[in-house]
Amino acid sequence: MSEGGAGGGALLSPHRLEAFSDGVMAVIITVMALSLQMPSSATWAAAEHRLPEVLTFALSFTFIAIYWNNHHHLLRATRTISGGVMWANMLLLFWLALIPVLTAWIARAPGQSVPAAFYGVDAAAAATSYAILVRVIIRANSSSSEIARAIGSDFKGTVSVVAYLVAVGLALLSPFLAYATYSGVAIMWMVPDRRLYSPLSAPPRASPDRPLP
Amino acid sequence: MSEGGAGGGALLSPHRLEAFSDGVMAVIITVMALSLQMPSSATWAAAEHRLPEVLTFALSFTFIAIYWNNHHHLLRATRTISGGVMWANMLLLFWLALIPVLTAWIARAPGQSVPAAFYGVDAAAAATSYAILVRVIIRANSSSSEIARAIGSDFKGTVSVVAYLVAVGLALLSPFLAYATYSGVAIMWMVPDRRLYSPLSAPPRASPDRPLP
Amino acid sequence: MSEGGAGGGALLSPHRLEAFSDGVMAVIITVMALSLQMPSSATWAAAEHRLPEVLTFALSFTFIAIYWNNHHHLLRATRTISGGVMWANMLLLFWLALIPVLTAWIARAPGQSVPAAFYGVDAAAAATSYAILVRVIIRANSSSSEIARAIGSDFKGTVSVVAYLVAVGLALLSPFLAYATYSGVAIMWMVPDRRLYSPLSAPPRASPDRPLP
Amino acid sequence: MSEGGAGGGALLSPHRLEAFSDGVMAVIITVMALSLQMPSSATWAAAEHRLPEVLTFALSFTFIAIYWNNHHHLLRATRTISGGVMWANMLLLFWLALIPVLTAWIARAPGQSVPAAFYGVDAAAAATSYAILVRVIIRANSSSSEIARAIGSDFKGTVSVVAYLVAVGLALLSPFLAYATYSGVAIMWMVPDRRLYSPLSAPPRASPDRPLP
Repeated sequence: MSEGGAGGGALLSPHRLEAFSDGVMAVIITVMALSLQMPSSATWAAAEHRLPEVLTFALSFTFIAIYWNNHHHLLRATRTISGGVMWANMLLLFWLALIPVLTAWIARAPGQSVPAAFYGVDAAAAATSYAILVRVIIRANSSSSEIARAIGSDFKGTVSVVAYLVAVGLALLSPFLAYATYSGVAIMWMVPDRRLYSPLSAPPRASPDRPLP
Repeated sequence: MSEGGAGGGALLSPHRLEAFSDGVMAVIITVMALSLQMPSSATWAAAEHRLPEVLTFALSFTFIAIYWNNHHHLLRATRTISGGVMWANMLLLFWLALIPVLTAWIARAPGQSVPAAFYGVDAAAAATSYAILVRVIIRANSSSSEIARAIGSDFKGTVSVVAYLVAVGLALLSPFLAYATYSGVAIMWMVPDRRLYSPLSAPPRASPDRPLP
Repeated sequence: MSEGGAGGGALLSPHRLEAFSDGVMAVIITVMALSLQMPSSATWAAAEHRLPEVLTFALSFTFIAIYWNNHHHLLRATRTISGGVMWANMLLLFWLALIPVLTAWIARAPGQSVPAAFYGVDAAAAATSYAILVRVIIRANSSSSEIARAIGSDFKGTVSVVAYLVAVGLALLSPFLAYATYSGVAIMWMVPDRRLYSPLSAPPRASPDRPLP
Repeated sequence: MSEGGAGGGALLSPHRLEAFSDGVMAVIITVMALSLQMPSSATWAAAEHRLPEVLTFALSFTFIAIYWNNHHHLLRATRTISGGVMWANMLLLFWLALIPVLTAWIARAPGQSVPAAFYGVDAAAAATSYAILVRVIIRANSSSSEIARAIGSDFKGTVSVVAYLVAVGLALLSPFLAYATYSGVAIMWMVPDRRLYSPLSAPPRASPDRPLP
């Protein structure tokens, strides 16, 4: 609150934006679990039939978790937000909010191309919104050079958008190629966090795509 | 917390009111996305049939996003809240909480007048509650002249109430006239945030993108 | 956080308890609105048939809003919480979490005694849990006499429990007598906030049942 | 925020992790109550038929409440979080998010072995994730010896994992043996908080009611 005031009336502190985004992402993750159908009977076979649904849920859970993690790091490096930041953030939340219904659609028809392709379209839209959010935040915090340095090149963000668009095309050949691509993007965001970056973390920087150094 | 105490037992700090309102609005936005029905089959045609639902969702998402943004700015300028503020805020949340069910109703019958009209009634009630909230907050913070200056004339708030009531009438002619009006009000709240106010932001006032006037 | 540490390892600050309770109450209020069925067709008559549901929702919304308000005031006066406070709070949230399903049950059968009676049983259990919470908090904060003074006699809390139990009996005669009693208790909590207490608010105290002075 | 910065870019403060976890757990508890079916008619007999569902809900509510409580204490003792902490926490939330659908499955078929066994599998996975979270947090906070002392031996955590796995086996004999075991674990976590630890709380340690050992 005080930070927002310090920067003049035009600039807001990111605290409440974080809290709101956390709320939305927490609800998305949880209600997505509710979209899982109960097994149709109390047998192992019925439970086994739900395996594709559980895997789809796990993929989307990881997808949202990565966004939460990146968003957390991005806003940590942010000092002030503008109206543009607010709307870019809302656009990101819009695409994320569609994930549960798309997840449910895939879970009912995991072998079909169209749901798998739509999932990729939404994922690409979310990744693009995130890239816009990064740029709008850099502009709003232009007085401090820290933010641009902290955010860095957003290379993985660009790779993600391209990969999702490729996956949309692959889905038309086979939905499983698309799922493999979505999983690959998720692994790209998770793996370096524990392996590649840690030994290199000598200079104390922060980075949105390096959630845990 | 400390601010509330400073003003005597009668005055509360707005922090927890914000957090609660954020929670309600985050849940509204997210569960509304769940009211979207999955396409009935895994085809492009079935997905296309859901387009009116997605557009309705986008309208209501924007509607809630604007309230969150305005609420954010309003409470930023607020130092203390009274019981009246608490209840005015609850009244606003009451009308906002009805948005998802009304959105779902429109999505099932986008060409019908009655759901479109009810949406306008609820929107007008929410806008009126917001106007009440603004006035109650000004009264509770009367000792500081800052709040009234920051909030200003609430011109756009008055325009919104009138426009929503007009839209209720228009809905009886054609629901699409009502939807156009709702979209117009949303655009009115979004556009100035980025275009009109920024160049004028020389003196440190409430905010160049200050959503609530 | 720091307060908790200052009081020794055994005592926790109430901040996260508040945040969690806010989250639960925000979700209750919002999902309750989702339990409202859409009108069965796009006509005024169909909308009119939903009026009992909307009124039931309004009653339960007010019920939760009063608990949020009282809870807010109670925890404002609280410095430290114990494990007992945590569990008493969870017990309160348990009964509140049952309100949406009971509200939906009433909404489907507003003229029946049994749902109206069960609502009263749950309301009495919630009010009793709140009274327990008040006492456990006083015990956990015994070192400061401020809390007991701030909380006062909890007279309205006792009245509420008795009224709810009476309403359970009345429901067996007529559910509408029970609804009238529930509404009466809600009004008891709301009215004094704006009328009776304000002129008397000379000494700066806080009180859980005097949410707005 | 400032704490995270102090430790270098690699270390984050636990505040937002707490807020997000609180949100997820609050939604889980509340939506689980929604999975309760209304009684099929407005009679005492119909309500009585829902008793197994309400008991199942109470068990799962307590289950989540214990995790919230333990999580609260764990993060209170935490100064910095790493990416590993973030992902361990997400893994825990993943298993907790599956509780509502498993609860609903049990509620529909309380006398069947398979749902009772799956509940135990998920409970064991959640308890194992929690144990991983404890260890990852200790590693991330290794510079301060306080955390390891505060967390202690995690004896009850190990007992819980073993008990849940035993319950999976017992479920195949009788689901009620499994339910008894789940309830026993819950009681183990609740009771000491108020009885055993309090008299010993002379030295200011983590907490007399410290849920996570």
